[in-house]
Amino acid sequence: MTTTKRIVLAQRPSGLPDDDTWALEEVDLPDPTEGQILVKVDHISLDPAMRGWLNDVRSYVPPVKIGEVMRAGVTGTVVKSRHPDFAVGDAVTGTLGVTEYALSDGTGVRRIDTSVAGPATWLGALGMPGLTAYHGLYEVGEMKSGDTVLISAAAGAVGSVAGQIAKARGCTVIGIAGGPDKCAWLREIGFDAAIDYKNEDVLTRLREIAPKGIDVYFDNVGGDILDAALANLRRGARIIICGAISSYNEEKLPPGPSRYMSLLVFRARMQGFLVFDYPDKDEAALADLAGLITSGQLVARETVVEGGIEDFGRTLLGLFEGRNTGKLVLKIA
Amino acid sequence: MTTTKRIVLAQRPSGLPDDDTWALEEVDLPDPTEGQILVKVDHISLDPAMRGWLNDVRSYVPPVKIGEVMRAGVTGTVVKSRHPDFAVGDAVTGTLGVTEYALSDGTGVRRIDTSVAGPATWLGALGMPGLTAYHGLYEVGEMKSGDTVLISAAAGAVGSVAGQIAKARGCTVIGIAGGPDKCAWLREIGFDAAIDYKNEDVLTRLREIAPKGIDVYFDNVGGDILDAALANLRRGARIIICGAISSYNEEKLPPGPSRYMSLLVFRARMQGFLVFDYPDKDEAALADLAGLITSGQLVARETVVEGGIEDFGRTLLGLFEGRNTGKLVLKIA
Repeated sequence: MTTTKRIVLAQRPSGLPDDDTWALEEVDLPDPTEGQILVKVDHISLDPAMRGWLNDVRSYVPPVKIGEVMRAGVTGTVVKSRHPDFAVGDAVTGTLGVTEYALSDGTGVRRIDTSVAGPATWLGALGMPGLTAYHGLYEVGEMKSGDTVLISAAAGAVGSVAGQIAKARGCTVIGIAGGPDKCAWLREIGFDAAIDYKNEDVLTRLREIAPKGIDVYFDNVGGDILDAALANLRRGARIIICGAISSYNEEKLPPGPSRYMSLLVFRARMQGFLVFDYPDKDEAALADLAGLITSGQLVARETVVEGGIEDFGRTLLGLFEGRNTGKLVLKIA
Repeated sequence: MTTTKRIVLAQRPSGLPDDDTWALEEVDLPDPTEGQILVKVDHISLDPAMRGWLNDVRSYVPPVKIGEVMRAGVTGTVVKSRHPDFAVGDAVTGTLGVTEYALSDGTGVRRIDTSVAGPATWLGALGMPGLTAYHGLYEVGEMKSGDTVLISAAAGAVGSVAGQIAKARGCTVIGIAGGPDKCAWLREIGFDAAIDYKNEDVLTRLREIAPKGIDVYFDNVGGDILDAALANLRRGARIIICGAISSYNEEKLPPGPSRYMSLLVFRARMQGFLVFDYPDKDEAALADLAGLITSGQLVARETVVEGGIEDFGRTLLGLFEGRNTGKLVLKIA
């Protein structure tokens, strides 16, 4: 038996999650039975999408139930195994939840090579965010060399990887982020231009930087920034709908992009996707991403918060306040 | 010399065009010089897109200038010709404007075969609206047999043709139109179901009629109906952005589709296009449409208003009041 602390959903939030949203519980996990492993979690991923999982609505995955362990991607080490594919000591990643220890039958659990990159990177550039950036640009955005690519939440986990992939592919890359520090970092990692939406008018700057319009817009935020992008498209542009963090905590659906008729004027499209949609392409994408890291073309950055399981709720809020640069992870002390 | 009456743009409207928008002028046209024809206009097309051409904004075509003859598609007869491709007596169609007589160098003017269908149909099912429906469904919507296809403004010039093309292709077709008469007509011409947006809740009815969601939505209206469609998509759905008549007379951009994040949930796309984008496919499309008319699978309907050039402004308003079923044309008495 192993005692573990874990975070369960106590009640559904309206607006931002708060202390009442979560409950800490301590339970005893039995030892693995045949076909199971026990994983000691070391890093927990914090994702904007988590906010959507808390709403009791039909979506691409079922909502987290009240009383259920909060869904989360993690990395960890196999500490007990009765599974043929995993040995004690294996470093792994999977959606095992906000917990110190997790029992698993191995579904969705993969071994990771920590000589390529540390565990936090396997939750970031080499995890779901990296694959999201990769599949979004290539499968949905049909990005090609020479395109002008605009990316919002560009200093975030997905955006920062997307920008560097586009740059490595020979595109002109413009990032939108909040504050001079994030913008300076974007320029440092190779973005051709960065727009500080907290201090600059996005549409005005966009028209200056890309007077011919943009070919690909990787949208992580929605809201006014999506409208600014719609107003400055190039003919045949592709808008990748990856997220809308600006509205995730709104109680009522905010108005949609009022300039969507630009799609007609510019013969453009706006298309949504999920990272899970291209399982056959994950392996090649990860190999490509790892290669970019090795060659120095992709800087994987994480904001690592050290703490205990009980710090999950507070840490998650940091995402919506834009406190992270790159991937936000909670490292279990 | 030929004396002609014609309608010019007197001032740009805000909101609905009114009497102050237009001026009637009478001018003398010289005889055709080498390479020119003189056309006596018999039918004038009235299109929702005309409203957009009156705004002084950058769009897919330049706005009509103040003092310029109002742009319009017409049919007519060549009455004088010094052009090798046209003989006196030829029935033709082209964008010759709101005028009784037009002098042209033949650019964009085509001969029409009035034994296949009358002139009004060459402005409707065999004109721009027909090609819009055809290219929209096939090129943008990638419609295929078995799809569930939703069409708004379904009793209009584009919508009524789109629905019948989809039906002939083996799709399940749902139309949205205003009022019981239009809905009854849609069922009469083969639509599987019709929703009366003036008397029924579109989203509720849509969920009843298409519980599995829709594959293709041909959007002519925008607004709440676009949101209802977004809420009821099938995975991989395609939304064809053809128009947004609900907002053409708004002075301020209304809010966009608040449910656009459904594109992500359903891995769907929303794409704009213009009828002019597929010139290489027009001939085959027109042949296909003419074949559907001949076989009785496509009922081409027009609302023909008889009057003079001076009735143009009043007739145009009928479009925005939904007074037409099928294509609205002004027949010059």
